[in-house]
Amino acid sequence: MSVQQNLERLGIRLPASTPPAAAFVQYVQTGNLLFVSGHIATKDGKAWVGQLGHQLTTEDGKAAARSVAIELMGTLKAAVGDLERISRIVKLMVLVNSAPHFTEQHLVANGASELLVQIFGAAGPHARAAFGVAQIPFGACVEIELLAELRA
Amino acid sequence: MSVQQNLERLGIRLPASTPPAAAFVQYVQTGNLLFVSGHIATKDGKAWVGQLGHQLTTEDGKAAARSVAIELMGTLKAAVGDLERISRIVKLMVLVNSAPHFTEQHLVANGASELLVQIFGAAGPHARAAFGVAQIPFGACVEIELLAELRA
Amino acid sequence: MSVQQNLERLGIRLPASTPPAAAFVQYVQTGNLLFVSGHIATKDGKAWVGQLGHQLTTEDGKAAARSVAIELMGTLKAAVGDLERISRIVKLMVLVNSAPHFTEQHLVANGASELLVQIFGAAGPHARAAFGVAQIPFGACVEIELLAELRA
Repeated sequence: MSVQQNLERLGIRLPASTPPAAAFVQYVQTGNLLFVSGHIATKDGKAWVGQLGHQLTTEDGKAAARSVAIELMGTLKAAVGDLERISRIVKLMVLVNSAPHFTEQHLVANGASELLVQIFGAAGPHARAAFGVAQIPFGACVEIELLAELRA
Repeated sequence: MSVQQNLERLGIRLPASTPPAAAFVQYVQTGNLLFVSGHIATKDGKAWVGQLGHQLTTEDGKAAARSVAIELMGTLKAAVGDLERISRIVKLMVLVNSAPHFTEQHLVANGASELLVQIFGAAGPHARAAFGVAQIPFGACVEIELLAELRA
Repeated sequence: MSVQQNLERLGIRLPASTPPAAAFVQYVQTGNLLFVSGHIATKDGKAWVGQLGHQLTTEDGKAAARSVAIELMGTLKAAVGDLERISRIVKLMVLVNSAPHFTEQHLVANGASELLVQIFGAAGPHARAAFGVAQIPFGACVEIELLAELRA
Protein backbone atom coordinates (compact mmCIF):
# COMPACT_ATOMS: atom_id res chain seq x y z
CA MET A 1 0.00 0.00 0.00
CA SER A 2 1.23 3.48 -0.78
CA VAL A 3 1.46 6.24 1.82
CA GLN A 4 -1.48 7.97 0.15
CA GLN A 5 -3.53 4.76 0.28
CA ASN A 6 -2.72 4.35 3.97
CA LEU A 7 -3.90 7.90 4.64
CA GLU A 8 -7.14 7.25 2.78
CA ARG A 9 -7.71 3.92 4.53
CA LEU A 10 -7.50 5.71 7.89
CA GLY A 11 -9.64 8.59 6.66
CA ILE A 12 -6.91 11.15 7.26
CA ARG A 13 -6.92 14.33 5.20
CA LEU A 14 -3.66 16.24 5.58
CA PRO A 15 -3.92 19.92 6.51
CA ALA A 16 -2.21 22.63 4.49
CA SER A 17 1.02 23.60 6.23
CA THR A 18 0.71 27.01 7.91
CA PRO A 19 3.85 29.15 7.62
CA PRO A 20 4.81 30.49 11.07
CA ALA A 21 4.46 34.24 11.66
CA ALA A 22 8.00 34.55 12.97
CA ALA A 23 11.56 34.44 11.71
CA PHE A 24 11.67 30.69 11.41
CA VAL A 25 10.30 28.18 8.93
CA GLN A 26 8.43 24.88 9.14
CA TYR A 27 11.28 22.84 7.67
CA VAL A 28 14.82 23.02 6.33
CA GLN A 29 16.38 20.47 3.99
CA THR A 30 20.11 19.81 4.12
CA GLY A 31 21.44 17.06 1.90
CA ASN A 32 18.76 14.39 2.02
CA LEU A 33 17.71 15.22 5.58
CA LEU A 34 14.58 17.23 6.27
CA PHE A 35 14.47 18.92 9.68
CA VAL A 36 10.88 19.77 10.62
CA SER A 37 10.14 22.39 13.28
CA GLY A 38 8.36 21.55 16.51
CA HIS A 39 4.60 21.44 15.82
CA ILE A 40 2.19 21.95 18.70
CA ALA A 41 -1.10 20.11 19.20
CA THR A 42 -4.14 21.99 17.95
CA LYS A 43 -7.88 21.40 18.23
CA ASP A 44 -10.48 23.29 16.19
CA GLY A 45 -7.72 25.54 14.84
CA LYS A 46 -6.45 26.63 18.26
CA ALA A 47 -3.73 25.34 20.59
CA TRP A 48 -4.83 22.15 22.37
CA VAL A 49 -4.23 23.53 25.84
CA GLY A 50 -3.56 21.57 29.02
CA GLN A 51 -1.10 19.67 31.11
CA LEU A 52 -0.89 15.89 31.29
CA GLY A 53 -1.65 14.77 34.81
CA HIS A 54 -3.72 17.88 35.49
CA GLN A 55 -6.47 18.67 32.94
CA LEU A 56 -5.59 15.89 30.50
CA THR A 57 -5.32 12.11 30.72
CA THR A 58 -2.82 9.85 28.99
CA GLU A 59 -5.49 8.95 26.42
CA ASP A 60 -6.08 12.68 25.70
CA GLY A 61 -2.35 13.14 25.28
CA LYS A 62 -2.09 10.17 22.94
CA ALA A 63 -4.87 11.62 20.77
CA ALA A 64 -3.10 14.99 20.81
CA ALA A 65 0.19 13.38 19.75
CA ARG A 66 -1.62 11.60 16.91
CA SER A 67 -3.06 14.94 15.77
CA VAL A 68 0.42 16.49 15.79
CA ALA A 69 1.65 13.62 13.60
CA ILE A 70 -1.07 14.54 11.09
CA GLU A 71 0.07 18.17 11.13
CA LEU A 72 3.67 17.02 10.66
CA MET A 73 2.65 14.91 7.65
CA GLY A 74 0.93 17.98 6.21
CA THR A 75 4.22 19.84 6.49
CA LEU A 76 6.15 16.88 5.03
CA LYS A 77 3.80 16.91 2.05
CA ALA A 78 4.27 20.66 1.60
CA ALA A 79 8.04 20.08 1.71
CA VAL A 80 8.40 17.13 -0.65
CA GLY A 81 5.19 17.06 -2.72
CA ASP A 82 4.85 13.28 -2.87
CA LEU A 83 5.18 11.53 0.51
CA GLU A 84 6.63 8.49 -1.29
CA ARG A 85 9.81 10.55 -1.55
CA ILE A 86 10.34 10.03 2.19
CA SER A 87 12.60 7.03 2.63
CA ARG A 88 12.58 7.06 6.44
CA ILE A 89 11.15 8.81 9.45
CA VAL A 90 14.47 9.12 11.28
CA LYS A 91 13.66 10.65 14.64
CA LEU A 92 10.98 12.29 16.77
CA MET A 93 11.43 14.53 19.78
CA VAL A 94 8.15 14.38 21.71
CA LEU A 95 7.59 17.05 24.35
CA VAL A 96 4.77 16.46 26.79
CA ASN A 97 3.48 19.33 28.94
CA SER A 98 3.62 17.44 32.24
CA ALA A 99 2.45 17.87 35.78
CA PRO A 100 5.24 17.00 38.25
CA HIS A 101 3.95 13.49 38.92
CA PHE A 102 3.04 12.47 35.32
CA THR A 103 5.39 9.76 34.03
CA GLU A 104 3.66 8.30 30.95
CA GLN A 105 5.27 10.49 28.28
CA HIS A 106 6.17 7.33 26.34
CA LEU A 107 2.50 6.31 26.08
CA VAL A 108 1.53 9.80 24.93
CA ALA A 109 4.29 9.70 22.30
CA ASN A 110 2.99 6.37 20.98
CA GLY A 111 0.01 8.28 19.58
CA ALA A 112 2.35 9.83 17.04
CA SER A 113 4.74 6.89 16.61
CA GLU A 114 2.01 4.34 15.91
CA LEU A 115 0.31 6.52 13.29
CA LEU A 116 3.59 7.17 11.47
CA VAL A 117 4.24 3.42 11.28
CA GLN A 118 0.68 2.81 10.02
CA ILE A 119 1.16 5.41 7.29
CA PHE A 120 4.79 4.91 6.25
CA GLY A 121 5.07 1.15 6.75
CA ALA A 122 8.69 -0.02 6.74
CA ALA A 123 9.87 3.59 6.46
CA GLY A 124 7.98 4.50 9.63
CA PRO A 125 9.85 3.13 12.66
CA HIS A 126 12.02 5.91 14.08
CA ALA A 127 14.37 6.77 16.91
CA ARG A 128 12.68 8.81 19.60
CA ALA A 129 13.12 10.85 22.74
CA ALA A 130 9.99 11.60 24.77
CA PHE A 131 10.01 13.59 27.98
CA GLY A 132 8.02 15.94 30.18
CA VAL A 133 8.51 19.68 29.82
CA ALA A 134 7.46 22.57 32.07
CA GLN A 135 5.46 24.35 29.38
CA ILE A 136 4.91 24.59 25.63
CA PRO A 137 4.11 27.69 23.52
CA PHE A 138 0.46 28.77 23.82
CA GLY A 139 0.04 26.26 26.66
CA ALA A 140 -0.28 23.35 24.21
CA CYS A 141 -0.21 19.85 25.69
CA VAL A 142 2.18 18.26 23.17
CA GLU A 143 4.89 19.46 20.77
CA ILE A 144 6.75 17.21 18.33
CA GLU A 145 9.84 17.81 16.20
CA LEU A 146 10.62 15.42 13.33
CA LEU A 147 13.60 14.44 11.21
CA ALA A 148 13.03 12.63 7.92
CA GLU A 149 15.30 11.16 5.26
CA LEU A 150 14.48 11.75 1.58
CA ARG A 151 15.23 9.44 -1.32
CA ALA A 152 18.35 10.54 -3.23
CA MET B 1 25.53 42.69 2.47
CA SER B 2 27.97 40.19 3.89
CA VAL B 3 27.52 38.54 7.27
CA GLN B 4 30.40 40.64 8.60
CA GLN B 5 28.78 43.85 7.29
CA ASN B 6 25.48 42.88 8.93
CA LEU B 7 27.25 42.36 12.25
CA GLU B 8 28.94 45.77 11.97
CA ARG B 9 25.71 47.51 10.96
CA LEU B 10 24.08 46.19 14.14
CA GLY B 11 27.13 47.03 16.24
CA ILE B 12 27.67 43.42 17.27
CA ARG B 13 31.16 42.29 18.24
CA LEU B 14 31.39 38.51 18.48
CA PRO B 15 32.87 37.08 21.66
CA ALA B 16 35.74 34.62 21.65
CA SER B 17 34.36 31.11 22.08
CA THR B 18 35.09 29.75 25.56
CA PRO B 19 35.98 26.06 25.64
CA PRO B 20 33.89 24.27 28.28
CA ALA B 21 35.66 22.94 31.36
CA ALA B 22 34.18 19.48 30.95
CA ALA B 23 34.47 16.45 28.69
CA PHE B 24 32.48 17.97 25.88
CA VAL B 25 33.22 20.55 23.19
CA GLN B 26 31.45 23.60 21.80
CA TYR B 27 30.89 22.05 18.37
CA VAL B 28 31.41 18.93 16.27
CA GLN B 29 31.46 18.87 12.48
CA THR B 30 30.28 15.78 10.63
CA GLY B 31 30.16 15.97 6.86
CA ASN B 32 29.00 19.51 6.14
CA LEU B 33 26.87 19.72 9.29
CA LEU B 34 28.07 21.61 12.33
CA PHE B 35 26.41 20.63 15.61
CA VAL B 36 26.84 23.40 18.19
CA SER B 37 26.42 22.68 21.91
CA GLY B 38 23.70 24.29 23.98
CA HIS B 39 24.87 27.80 24.98
CA ILE B 40 23.34 29.44 28.04
CA ALA B 41 22.46 33.11 28.37
CA THR B 42 25.11 35.19 30.12
CA LYS B 43 25.22 38.78 31.35
CA ASP B 44 28.41 40.54 32.47
CA GLY B 45 30.29 37.26 32.11
CA LYS B 46 28.00 35.30 34.42
CA ALA B 47 24.92 33.14 33.87
CA TRP B 48 21.84 35.30 33.19
CA VAL B 49 19.81 33.80 36.01
CA GLY B 50 16.03 33.68 36.32
CA GLN B 51 12.82 32.07 35.30
CA LEU B 52 10.41 33.44 32.71
CA GLY B 53 7.11 34.21 34.37
CA HIS B 54 8.80 34.71 37.75
CA GLN B 55 11.75 37.12 37.84
CA LEU B 56 11.89 37.75 34.10
CA THR B 57 9.45 39.11 31.51
CA THR B 58 9.02 37.97 27.91
CA GLU B 59 11.01 41.03 26.80
CA ASP B 60 13.86 40.06 29.16
CA GLY B 61 13.81 36.56 27.75
CA LYS B 62 13.84 37.83 24.18
CA ALA B 63 16.91 39.95 24.96
CA ALA B 64 18.54 36.93 26.62
CA ALA B 65 17.83 34.75 23.56
CA ARG B 66 19.35 37.45 21.32
CA SER B 67 22.49 37.45 23.51
CA VAL B 68 22.74 33.66 23.21
CA ALA B 69 22.56 34.00 19.42
CA ILE B 70 25.58 36.32 19.60
CA GLU B 71 27.46 33.74 21.69
CA LEU B 72 26.50 31.04 19.18
CA MET B 73 27.81 33.17 16.31
CA GLY B 74 31.08 33.58 18.23
CA THR B 75 31.35 29.80 18.38
CA LEU B 76 30.40 29.47 14.69
CA LYS B 77 33.19 31.89 13.82
CA ALA B 78 35.66 29.93 15.96
CA ALA B 79 34.55 26.77 14.13
CA VAL B 80 34.62 27.96 10.52
CA GLY B 81 36.79 31.09 10.49
CA ASP B 82 34.74 33.00 7.93
CA LEU B 83 31.00 33.10 8.65
CA GLU B 84 30.34 33.26 4.88
CA ARG B 85 31.18 29.56 4.90
CA ILE B 86 27.84 28.90 6.59
CA SER B 87 25.30 28.11 3.88
CA ARG B 88 22.32 27.70 6.22
CA ILE B 89 21.26 27.93 9.82
CA VAL B 90 19.40 24.60 9.82
CA LYS B 91 17.80 24.32 13.25
CA LEU B 92 17.58 25.82 16.73
CA MET B 93 16.44 24.16 19.92
CA VAL B 94 15.43 26.96 22.29
CA LEU B 95 15.02 26.06 25.96
CA VAL B 96 13.26 28.59 28.15
CA ASN B 97 13.50 28.32 31.95
CA SER B 98 9.76 28.63 32.59
CA ALA B 99 7.41 29.12 35.49
CA PRO B 100 4.46 26.72 35.28
CA HIS B 101 2.10 29.31 33.74
CA PHE B 102 4.50 30.92 31.24
CA THR B 103 3.50 30.09 27.65
CA GLU B 104 5.39 32.60 25.48
CA GLN B 105 8.48 30.52 24.74
CA HIS B 106 8.00 31.23 21.01
CA LEU B 107 8.26 34.99 21.61
CA VAL B 108 11.40 34.50 23.70
CA ALA B 109 12.91 32.36 20.94
CA ASN B 110 12.23 35.08 18.37
CA GLY B 111 14.99 37.11 20.01
CA ALA B 112 17.48 34.61 18.60
CA SER B 113 15.65 33.74 15.38
CA GLU B 114 15.20 37.35 14.27
CA LEU B 115 18.86 38.23 14.87
CA LEU B 116 20.08 35.21 12.90
CA VAL B 117 17.90 36.22 9.95
CA GLN B 118 19.18 39.81 10.17
CA ILE B 119 22.77 38.59 10.13
CA PHE B 120 22.64 35.64 7.72
CA GLY B 121 19.97 36.93 5.31
CA ALA B 122 18.63 34.18 3.05
CA ALA B 123 20.76 31.60 4.91
CA GLY B 124 19.15 32.59 8.21
CA PRO B 125 15.62 31.14 8.37
CA HIS B 126 15.73 27.88 10.28
CA ALA B 127 13.59 25.09 11.66
CA ARG B 128 12.98 25.47 15.37
CA ALA B 129 11.63 23.87 18.51
CA ALA B 130 11.04 26.17 21.49
CA PHE B 131 9.69 24.96 24.82
CA GLY B 132 9.71 25.52 28.56
CA VAL B 133 12.09 23.53 30.73
CA ALA B 134 12.21 23.01 34.48
CA GLN B 135 15.74 24.36 34.88
CA ILE B 136 18.93 25.15 32.99
CA PRO B 137 22.56 24.76 34.15
CA PHE B 138 23.62 27.56 36.54
CA GLY B 139 19.98 28.70 36.69
CA ALA B 140 20.27 30.49 33.32
CA CYS B 141 17.04 31.75 31.79
CA VAL B 142 17.66 30.54 28.22
CA GLU B 143 19.75 27.85 26.52
CA ILE B 144 20.01 27.39 22.75
CA GLU B 145 21.48 24.57 20.65
CA LEU B 146 22.19 25.20 16.95
CA LEU B 147 22.74 23.14 13.80
CA ALA B 148 24.37 24.79 10.78
CA GLU B 149 25.16 23.63 7.26
CA LEU B 150 28.56 24.51 5.75
CA ARG B 151 29.35 25.11 2.11
CA ALA B 152 30.92 22.06 0.48
CA MET C 1 44.03 1.38 23.22
CA SER C 2 41.02 0.07 21.42
CA VAL C 3 37.47 0.81 22.51
CA GLN C 4 37.12 -2.81 23.63
CA GLN C 5 40.32 -2.56 25.68
CA ASN C 6 39.08 0.63 27.32
CA LEU C 7 35.83 -1.10 28.27
CA GLU C 8 37.75 -4.02 29.78
CA ARG C 9 40.16 -1.74 31.64
CA LEU C 10 37.17 -0.05 33.32
CA GLY C 11 35.45 -3.38 33.97
CA ILE C 12 32.42 -2.44 31.89
CA ARG C 13 30.36 -5.19 30.32
CA LEU C 14 27.89 -3.83 27.77
CA PRO C 15 24.28 -4.89 28.13
CA ALA C 16 22.31 -6.41 25.27
CA SER C 17 20.16 -3.74 23.66
CA THR C 18 16.48 -4.19 24.55
CA PRO C 19 14.08 -3.43 21.70
CA PRO C 20 11.34 -1.06 22.89
CA ALA C 21 7.81 -2.45 23.13
CA ALA C 22 6.36 0.41 21.10
CA ALA C 23 6.32 1.66 17.52
CA PHE C 24 9.79 3.10 17.66
CA VAL C 25 13.28 1.65 17.51
CA GLN C 26 16.50 2.09 19.47
CA TYR C 27 18.41 3.62 16.55
CA VAL C 28 18.12 4.69 12.92
CA GLN C 29 21.06 5.07 10.56
CA THR C 30 20.91 7.64 7.77
CA GLY C 31 24.03 8.06 5.66
CA ASN C 32 26.89 7.69 8.13
CA LEU C 33 24.91 9.18 11.02
CA LEU C 34 23.41 6.97 13.70
CA PHE C 35 20.56 8.53 15.67
CA VAL C 36 20.07 6.70 18.98
CA SER C 37 16.79 6.99 20.90
CA GLY C 38 16.62 8.53 24.34
CA HIS C 39 17.67 5.89 26.90
CA ILE C 40 16.52 6.25 30.50
CA ALA C 41 18.57 5.45 33.58
CA THR C 42 17.95 2.01 35.03
CA LYS C 43 19.06 0.24 38.20
CA ASP C 44 18.63 -3.47 38.82
CA GLY C 45 16.65 -3.74 35.59
CA LYS C 46 14.06 -1.10 36.55
CA ALA C 47 13.80 2.64 35.96
CA TRP C 48 16.17 4.57 38.25
CA VAL C 49 13.44 6.73 39.73
CA GLY C 50 13.82 10.15 41.32
CA GLN C 51 14.26 13.83 40.86
CA LEU C 52 17.55 15.68 41.21
CA GLY C 53 17.31 18.14 44.07
CA HIS C 54 14.64 16.07 45.76
CA GLN C 55 15.43 12.37 46.30
CA LEU C 56 18.74 12.37 44.43
CA THR C 57 22.01 14.28 44.75
CA THR C 58 24.25 15.53 41.97
CA GLU C 59 26.56 12.57 42.60
CA ASP C 60 23.61 10.16 42.25
CA GLY C 61 22.68 11.85 38.99
CA LYS C 62 26.23 11.65 37.69
CA ALA C 63 26.28 7.91 38.41
CA ALA C 64 22.92 7.55 36.68
CA ALA C 65 24.17 9.43 33.62
CA ARG C 66 27.23 7.15 33.53
CA SER C 67 24.95 4.11 33.60
CA VAL C 68 22.90 5.52 30.71
CA ALA C 69 26.12 5.95 28.72
CA ILE C 70 26.78 2.22 29.24
CA GLU C 71 23.28 1.39 27.97
CA LEU C 72 23.85 3.67 24.98
CA MET C 73 27.12 1.89 24.18
CA GLY C 74 25.25 -1.42 24.34
CA THR C 75 22.86 -0.08 21.71
CA LEU C 76 25.74 1.30 19.63
CA LYS C 77 27.34 -2.15 19.67
CA ALA C 78 24.06 -3.75 18.61
CA ALA C 79 23.84 -1.23 15.78
CA VAL C 80 27.37 -1.39 14.38
CA GLY C 81 28.83 -4.68 15.64
CA ASP C 82 32.36 -3.39 16.23
CA LEU C 83 32.52 -0.14 18.23
CA GLU C 84 35.71 0.78 16.31
CA ARG C 85 33.37 1.60 13.43
CA ILE C 86 32.28 4.71 15.33
CA SER C 87 34.39 7.61 14.14
CA ARG C 88 32.86 10.21 16.46
CA ILE C 89 30.36 10.69 19.23
CA VAL C 90 28.73 13.78 17.68
CA LYS C 91 26.17 14.98 20.19
CA LEU C 92 24.35 14.16 23.41
CA MET C 93 21.07 15.56 24.66
CA VAL C 94 21.03 15.02 28.43
CA LEU C 95 17.69 15.38 30.19
CA VAL C 96 17.78 15.66 33.96
CA ASN C 97 14.57 15.16 35.97
CA SER C 98 14.95 18.31 38.06
CA ALA C 99 13.39 19.91 41.10
CA PRO C 100 12.68 23.62 40.47
CA HIS C 101 15.82 24.80 42.26
CA PHE C 102 18.31 22.22 40.90
CA THR C 103 20.84 23.87 38.55
CA GLU C 104 23.68 21.34 38.22
CA GLN C 105 22.46 19.52 35.10
CA HIS C 106 25.91 20.05 33.53
CA LEU C 107 27.60 18.15 36.38
CA VAL C 108 25.10 15.31 36.07
CA ALA C 109 25.74 15.16 32.32
CA ASN C 110 29.49 14.89 32.91
CA GLY C 111 28.87 11.37 34.21
CA ALA C 112 28.05 10.33 30.64
CA SER C 113 30.42 12.68 28.81
CA GLU C 114 33.49 11.68 30.81
CA LEU C 115 32.88 7.95 30.33
CA LEU C 116 32.42 8.34 26.56
CA VAL C 117 35.75 10.18 26.35
CA GLN C 118 37.45 7.49 28.46
CA ILE C 119 36.11 4.78 26.16
CA PHE C 120 36.29 6.41 22.72
CA GLY C 121 39.42 8.52 23.21
CA ALA C 122 39.83 11.13 20.45
CA ALA C 123 36.46 10.11 18.97
CA GLY C 124 34.74 10.78 22.30
CA PRO C 125 34.42 14.57 22.79
CA HIS C 126 30.98 15.63 21.65
CA ALA C 127 28.65 18.60 21.41
CA ARG C 128 26.04 18.59 24.17
CA ALA C 129 22.89 20.16 25.51
CA ALA C 130 21.99 19.40 29.14
CA PHE C 131 18.92 20.76 30.86
CA GLY C 132 16.29 20.12 33.51
CA VAL C 133 12.99 18.58 32.51
CA ALA C 134 9.69 18.30 34.39
CA GLN C 135 9.52 14.51 34.14
CA ILE C 136 10.90 11.49 32.29
CA PRO C 137 9.09 8.27 31.29
CA PHE C 138 8.66 5.88 34.25
CA GLY C 139 9.88 8.65 36.57
CA ALA C 140 13.52 8.00 35.64
CA CYS C 141 16.08 10.54 36.85
CA VAL C 142 18.07 10.88 33.62
CA GLU C 143 17.44 10.31 29.90
CA ILE C 144 20.09 10.67 27.18
CA GLU C 145 19.81 10.77 23.39
CA LEU C 146 22.96 10.25 21.29
CA LEU C 147 24.14 10.97 17.76
CA ALA C 148 27.18 9.13 16.41
CA GLU C 149 29.14 9.25 13.16
CA LEU C 150 30.21 6.00 11.51
CA ARG C 151 33.29 5.42 9.40
CA ALA C 152 32.49 5.52 5.69
